[in-house]
Amino acid sequence: MWLGALLFSASVILNISLLWNHKYFGFDRSYLEENLSWSRRAALEAEAVASVNCSGHGRAYLDGTSSEEDDHAEKWKLPVCECNTCYGGSDCSQFFHDCAADVDSGDPLFLEPFWMKHAASSAVLVTGWHRMSYSFPDKSSVSQELEKHIRRMHAVAKNAITHDKYIIFGGGSTQLLGAAVYALSMNLSSPASVVAATPFYPLYEVQTEFFQTVRFEFDGDASALKKYADNVIEFVTSPNNPDGNLRRPVSNGTPIYDHAYYWPHFTAIPAPSDQDLMIFTLSKLTGHAGSRFGWAFVKDKEVYDRMTRYISLAEMGISREAQLRALQLVKAILRSDNNGAEIFDFGMGKMRDRWRRLNDVVSLSTRFTLQKIPVRFCNFFQKLREPSPAYAWVKCEREEDGNCTSVLRAANIIGRAGSVFNAEDRYVRLSLLKSDDDFDLLVYRLRQLIVDEGVDPKII
Amino acid sequence: MWLGALLFSASVILNISLLWNHKYFGFDRSYLEENLSWSRRAALEAEAVASVNCSGHGRAYLDGTSSEEDDHAEKWKLPVCECNTCYGGSDCSQFFHDCAADVDSGDPLFLEPFWMKHAASSAVLVTGWHRMSYSFPDKSSVSQELEKHIRRMHAVAKNAITHDKYIIFGGGSTQLLGAAVYALSMNLSSPASVVAATPFYPLYEVQTEFFQTVRFEFDGDASALKKYADNVIEFVTSPNNPDGNLRRPVSNGTPIYDHAYYWPHFTAIPAPSDQDLMIFTLSKLTGHAGSRFGWAFVKDKEVYDRMTRYISLAEMGISREAQLRALQLVKAILRSDNNGAEIFDFGMGKMRDRWRRLNDVVSLSTRFTLQKIPVRFCNFFQKLREPSPAYAWVKCEREEDGNCTSVLRAANIIGRAGSVFNAEDRYVRLSLLKSDDDFDLLVYRLRQLIVDEGVDPKII
Repeated sequence: MWLGALLFSASVILNISLLWNHKYFGFDRSYLEENLSWSRRAALEAEAVASVNCSGHGRAYLDGTSSEEDDHAEKWKLPVCECNTCYGGSDCSQFFHDCAADVDSGDPLFLEPFWMKHAASSAVLVTGWHRMSYSFPDKSSVSQELEKHIRRMHAVAKNAITHDKYIIFGGGSTQLLGAAVYALSMNLSSPASVVAATPFYPLYEVQTEFFQTVRFEFDGDASALKKYADNVIEFVTSPNNPDGNLRRPVSNGTPIYDHAYYWPHFTAIPAPSDQDLMIFTLSKLTGHAGSRFGWAFVKDKEVYDRMTRYISLAEMGISREAQLRALQLVKAILRSDNNGAEIFDFGMGKMRDRWRRLNDVVSLSTRFTLQKIPVRFCNFFQKLREPSPAYAWVKCEREEDGNCTSVLRAANIIGRAGSVFNAEDRYVRLSLLKSDDDFDLLVYRLRQLIVDEGVDPKII
Repeated sequence: MWLGALLFSASVILNISLLWNHKYFGFDRSYLEENLSWSRRAALEAEAVASVNCSGHGRAYLDGTSSEEDDHAEKWKLPVCECNTCYGGSDCSQFFHDCAADVDSGDPLFLEPFWMKHAASSAVLVTGWHRMSYSFPDKSSVSQELEKHIRRMHAVAKNAITHDKYIIFGGGSTQLLGAAVYALSMNLSSPASVVAATPFYPLYEVQTEFFQTVRFEFDGDASALKKYADNVIEFVTSPNNPDGNLRRPVSNGTPIYDHAYYWPHFTAIPAPSDQDLMIFTLSKLTGHAGSRFGWAFVKDKEVYDRMTRYISLAEMGISREAQLRALQLVKAILRSDNNGAEIFDFGMGKMRDRWRRLNDVVSLSTRFTLQKIPVRFCNFFQKLREPSPAYAWVKCEREEDGNCTSVLRAANIIGRAGSVFNAEDRYVRLSLLKSDDDFDLLVYRLRQLIVDEGVDPKII
């Protein structure tokens, strides 16, 4: 009797889902009337992992470690919870009270709830025989479908003119930054000077110096150059990491536009960018930093060819798994509410709320200030909009607080020192991109610090 | 009535599969008594794509293009067949008779049938929120589970001693070759000489020269060096690409062992390799060239640290999707028949049969010869075994056939010229790794060529 009821319920659920699927799928319905076969194990494993209870303060992953030792790999075991910073215990329910608010890295976990909500449309099943070859049918290592969907994505975001430019995929924007410098340096006499205006993203310097090529070297702050210096390549980070401001070149060198943060989540979009070399990354659009997937739009055929050759000789193109997943994520975005704008509504809303909360606290202090970002008209939202930057660029105003990172560290907050960005250590960068747990703890610790400053806790 | 029967059948299938799953899964059965929910769409799409009929001469992929234009991305459409070389038509049933046998690239598609057979154990479902972070819980970008499973894989293959070495993941072996040269050059005065014994894999030279670092330069054939040359880094490719022979260093420089082909598929394993720096790639173990996933074992901590930093500054670690898939593939291998040795039985069997067929044809000719590979004792199979190389290294014996690539090209066979490997153009490399269609066509075209030479077609 009980079994019969279960069977009937399962059938009803199955058929509702088949009907739903038929509305969604655009092909032969008879297929769907059969049951799943070989894909079932992978789907069950994924759902089992998703159902592991980590109390909302952590997550289990399919490739996580298991609590039981399994040296013979015979049975699949459920992986354990991986807890957010400051949480522990087997179900992440334990909070460590003295733990520091770690807002050092730009890990974009604020978008994770968006993907939990879109579980069905963002999942992708990779078969054992998926894309084993070195190349796609057109002999390239670039998925045409992904390229097409990325261009559509920019059309929705209204943040870039793409139709008249080539596209290149890279291992995150990281690899494309290196490829771009390399390709541009070929038109210059050696060694080219690579510069960026202070404060700047430290990877530009570290990467350029590490690889020690004969063709270029890092030359520091772009503002320090003579206006008509020869032989210059300038990284123009817009919006800027760490301070979130929109930027233009300050030298007359060839610009590389690092547009990692040029999405409605983080900034007003005054107009679609139409530069000759623009670099974007999945990491800051969808939050998938771990995928190591970025793309560049390039106007000039010769620069495009050199960058493509760079990626090819570095690793023969970008992982087909990363490309397939990026495609599924972009498809899920394009199919979401508000004609594909849902992720921007979500991302901007979350980042704006965080910025407001942070300002509410910091504005009570005379010891700390935050960067100013103007209210601007946004081409995407079609209205004036508040700031929603990826990072707070905090300044310690007291003369004795020359090392702002240490001041915050003493208050149990881990930020990234100004000197890392070629600025004074009176500045510190705090990431606003991480999980709600990380952000909440940051605000809590800042409140404590400001109460210690003498501000009445009741008004905070 | 019809609906009732359908519902009942679906329920029965569902429950049989649930029972099977319980045997396999090692956790709470109650979960499995529920139906799949959000994972269902991804699983159905994958099965629908797999069911596209391409006549055994092609395949449809989840990220392939669709026959219908779909500018609004509202409904998912079935992708079209991508046909093997020389096949066409919407279901790949059309054979193009004058088409050339293209055996230029090392695309390892000979392993595809293995993965079709292991469809269930090799499939993996990636959730929208899988591993969004830059790092794993240990702050690295390396999956501990994958590392553990790769070490087990080597224990099964008996081809490497790994327990006393660090492991590094890279974008294919390609990226690790660059990282290894970089790391080793730091202990030498600049510029270090990078060498390899002729004939050698061309990427060593092209990659080293392209990146134009101040620390090293390519110096050609290792055999041409003075025996005690200073400052040398030698690529030791064993088995060698193109000729399949096991190699030792020929200089007194620091060796980088490129063990891409050191698997029982392609060679006898005289003993597990125990070198200080050994590079492997998923491409030649499982056939997944498109994943761009390789790994290196490194004995020295300093070299390991530098290689890790190289990968980190190049692209901040390897795609989590590629790592997850590699893990699933290695798990599928370890769980397969014969205690995880099934892929070696399959791979060796297929490559040995191809080598036999090729020899049967070429041995009738006086115009062409193949490289000699000795019969050797294999530590893995525990017996003497025939050769099963990845490539044929063909020599044109007639004096007038100085350009062997052109001779074969005239017979509608596309190989890779000897000069690409720093050897004479009297040699040409033919890939034996591709699909059955490619190999069958190669043998067919070679037969025609040898009949033209005057050999009686009846004895071929």
